Amino acid sequence: MKQVHSQSQYTLTELVRGLEDVVIKGNPNCLIQGVCTIHKAQVGRITFLNNPSYKKYLATTQASAVILMLEDAEICPTNALISRDPYYTYSKIAAFFDDHPPVKPEIHPTAVVGQHCHIDASVSIGANCVIGDNVTLAAGVVLGPGCIIGEFSTIDEASYLHANVTLYHKIHIGKRVLIASGTVIGGDGFGIAKHKGVWHKVPQLGRVVIEDDVEIGANCTIDRGAVEDTVLKKGAKLDNLIQIGHNVQIGEYSALAGCVGISGSTVIGKNCLIGGGVGFAGHLTIADNVMITGMTAVTKSIRGPGVYSSGVGGLVTNREWRKNSARVHRLDQLTERVKSLETILLGLTERKEI
Amino acid sequence: MKQVHSQSQYTLTELVRGLEDVVIKGNPNCLIQGVCTIHKAQVGRITFLNNPSYKKYLATTQASAVILMLEDAEICPTNALISRDPYYTYSKIAAFFDDHPPVKPEIHPTAVVGQHCHIDASVSIGANCVIGDNVTLAAGVVLGPGCIIGEFSTIDEASYLHANVTLYHKIHIGKRVLIASGTVIGGDGFGIAKHKGVWHKVPQLGRVVIEDDVEIGANCTIDRGAVEDTVLKKGAKLDNLIQIGHNVQIGEYSALAGCVGISGSTVIGKNCLIGGGVGFAGHLTIADNVMITGMTAVTKSIRGPGVYSSGVGGLVTNREWRKNSARVHRLDQLTERVKSLETILLGLTERKEI
Amino acid sequence: MKQVHSQSQYTLTELVRGLEDVVIKGNPNCLIQGVCTIHKAQVGRITFLNNPSYKKYLATTQASAVILMLEDAEICPTNALISRDPYYTYSKIAAFFDDHPPVKPEIHPTAVVGQHCHIDASVSIGANCVIGDNVTLAAGVVLGPGCIIGEFSTIDEASYLHANVTLYHKIHIGKRVLIASGTVIGGDGFGIAKHKGVWHKVPQLGRVVIEDDVEIGANCTIDRGAVEDTVLKKGAKLDNLIQIGHNVQIGEYSALAGCVGISGSTVIGKNCLIGGGVGFAGHLTIADNVMITGMTAVTKSIRGPGVYSSGVGGLVTNREWRKNSARVHRLDQLTERVKSLETILLGLTERKEI
Repeated sequence: MKQVHSQSQYTLTELVRGLEDVVIKGNPNCLIQGVCTIHKAQVGRITFLNNPSYKKYLATTQASAVILMLEDAEICPTNALISRDPYYTYSKIAAFFDDHPPVKPEIHPTAVVGQHCHIDASVSIGANCVIGDNVTLAAGVVLGPGCIIGEFSTIDEASYLHANVTLYHKIHIGKRVLIASGTVIGGDGFGIAKHKGVWHKVPQLGRVVIEDDVEIGANCTIDRGAVEDTVLKKGAKLDNLIQIGHNVQIGEYSALAGCVGISGSTVIGKNCLIGGGVGFAGHLTIADNVMITGMTAVTKSIRGPGVYSSGVGGLVTNREWRKNSARVHRLDQLTERVKSLETILLGLTERKEI
Repeated sequence: MKQVHSQSQYTLTELVRGLEDVVIKGNPNCLIQGVCTIHKAQVGRITFLNNPSYKKYLATTQASAVILMLEDAEICPTNALISRDPYYTYSKIAAFFDDHPPVKPEIHPTAVVGQHCHIDASVSIGANCVIGDNVTLAAGVVLGPGCIIGEFSTIDEASYLHANVTLYHKIHIGKRVLIASGTVIGGDGFGIAKHKGVWHKVPQLGRVVIEDDVEIGANCTIDRGAVEDTVLKKGAKLDNLIQIGHNVQIGEYSALAGCVGISGSTVIGKNCLIGGGVGFAGHLTIADNVMITGMTAVTKSIRGPGVYSSGVGGLVTNREWRKNSARVHRLDQLTERVKSLETILLGLTERKEI
Repeated sequence: MKQVHSQSQYTLTELVRGLEDVVIKGNPNCLIQGVCTIHKAQVGRITFLNNPSYKKYLATTQASAVILMLEDAEICPTNALISRDPYYTYSKIAAFFDDHPPVKPEIHPTAVVGQHCHIDASVSIGANCVIGDNVTLAAGVVLGPGCIIGEFSTIDEASYLHANVTLYHKIHIGKRVLIASGTVIGGDGFGIAKHKGVWHKVPQLGRVVIEDDVEIGANCTIDRGAVEDTVLKKGAKLDNLIQIGHNVQIGEYSALAGCVGISGSTVIGKNCLIGGGVGFAGHLTIADNVMITGMTAVTKSIRGPGVYSSGVGGLVTNREWRKNSARVHRLDQLTERVKSLETILLGLTERKEI
């Protein structure tokens, strides 16, 4: 459950209470009313320095406090919160200033709730939600307006579905799961069999299982399994507009940036980092601790950890790009020319030796 | 209309009734309660062998029956259903175990229905649907909860729109069409004209026509035509998160994997297979029977059948990828070096000959 | 506000009234009942010639009038409207035949409206909309059915949200903004911090600001800022299925084709043209007047105007593509062979010289 913070300002001492390994340098009673970025900072606000490319703004920042690493504290012109992990520390402090609207436990009178549902008294169901028969919603679950929950689906404690999320039937959502608007979970996988020139639909009989602490962005699509289940494991994080095909598994604590597409039956390991726009072929296995750079086409399984990419990268002018393409398409010819040179030269040197 | 199967188990004889070219090898009275995958099989379940990469699991499968081709029957350790097309045969048998929730013909009391609509008595309209004026819904049409159907749209027999599908005005949906949740059909095409530095909207006056037996996945967008119609022809199959620009035509029985984007006025032929993440420029013509591999950039028309790809493929380590990029960008230089060698060598050999 | 045209046909004189720089060649009283394309033209319809690749259809077009440039008027077989900018002129004339359904100012009885809202009397709120507390809707705003507007959001004059658009809290929409169905604005940005092997959510405290005259297509996702706001500046145009990360800024009158993904904190200049499927890394700065071709991976900032692309392009057969890949991966080897040749040849020529 989200902690509620009711004050409009906090001292640095209050902000770091309970955080391990954070040391205040400067005035612990400095009052903070909100957050800011380091380069557009204001008095009364707190910021953080994590990305080295923003370090140039530190010396002149107008913030009243900066969360940073010990090595950067020296040149900090104001109060500092020294942390081994400034971005994590910032995430905890920013929560004090979170103004996302609070929700109250109620079933909105316009919501349509099916039969035989188990709905905890602490659940909040927004206007115009449609809950199918035999749905279970555990303590603290929040459904934004317009959510549609299919028959026999279950949502575990403290999960939060924003407005207009669609769950098909028999979907399982774990604890503390966050799902942004427009996301569709449990649609049929893309199973079609061609027979005598015509596609036939292959029934999709599996479910989708979303484990605890998963976060899913807006307008994603996560298909139900064909036979077994599609599974997003504990703590996996998905950005927006991601397509997860049937039978896919995403490992624990893996993070996928926006616009990723994963074809059916591919299994991704733990702690992977998948860049934006990456596409995976089907039936692949990706090891744990793999990082894939943005827009890579993953066409084969990856057996060990490391950073992977595809093809030829590099942003260039369109003129240069046209040349590159031409050069690559003439590589055969260049190779032949080198071969000819080798033959001639071999002839020359052999004659010499004779 | 979906066939209803009410038993919890079936003999192999019952399962193959009516299927041509399927032969039972083993015990025809073997009882089957459900489906399974070949590598995680269970007693009482039926599976299939289609993808050769799963053949290694056949000899040890725990399934009670396997649908497979004649050549694989020899090593099948259990009952076999021999078929020339195991995946198609599986699609028919799996339908016996489909537990998608049944729908009943009713207009939910919360649905908002416009004036002058023609709605067959067998139609099912889910909770919170909004049906505009002058809409026609033929026999057996199902609208899941939250669907919005624009004015003058028509949906023909037995088509099924899952929850939260949006149709704009004057859209035509054929017979037995399936549309998954979140898909938007008939939004304005991306028609903008720049005049004196400012974009002006170009009215989009065409419609969208979805022919019979088309299937469309979740969160797709299919824009209405600018002048004429955008058309998905009979039996075309679209996965999730696909963008279809204005005036596009998709040929009969073509199948598009997830995350494909097709720019305006491109025409795709019949029986094409388009891989995931493929992008098409506008105003192209793609022949029948074309296959395009995943994430290809289709920048020109394709005149004949075949398999097409773009650029340079191959998944490599990021280190190798950086090298590749550098190598390609130095190709001019390499070509120059070869040219120099050729000149020198020509000089040498000429002198020799003299 | 959209102009209302109530006639079923217009003379050319009526159609060009008020348009600068348009000259009628032929019969100004010719009656026009609608628009058509140049190659599938009909009597009584008007078309335009803008794309040179369609010029071949001009001489035989069946249209009753063609909007075209002076240089094409010579070979026009029918009435012509001569314009310096035929596509812009067409956009104005096509508006006469726009049959998008009219809307009337009303709050549909099924809409749920929160407390303390400011809703102009001319606003139209469709069925099943859910308007949060403290929302402001200015004159002429239209919300299609099923829209959800979060608390404290404001929508300025004459903006039009089609069915099923979702706005989170504190979003600002300017004047005359168009948003197509399924689009989600203001979801949390993808801010996660890993600490002791576990991802922690970073609160997203910024808003989204959509300035005047922006158009956004269907099923787009535009995340709220992490600290400051995500901003789409005046006159920016977005096609469908576009992902805009937190803190992104899109410059005035820039246009983005479908399936573009922009990672967090990237800033795009004015008057840019971004092709379909382009992906941007985060924290980049793109200059004004930049054009990026489709499916480019933008991995670094762009400092000046021009046309940019990435990697190696060119659509080829899959067989050729496999060769290309192999060639590129053997480039090191080829370079070594050239180096050997150079060494040998240097030896030869030196010996000669000695």
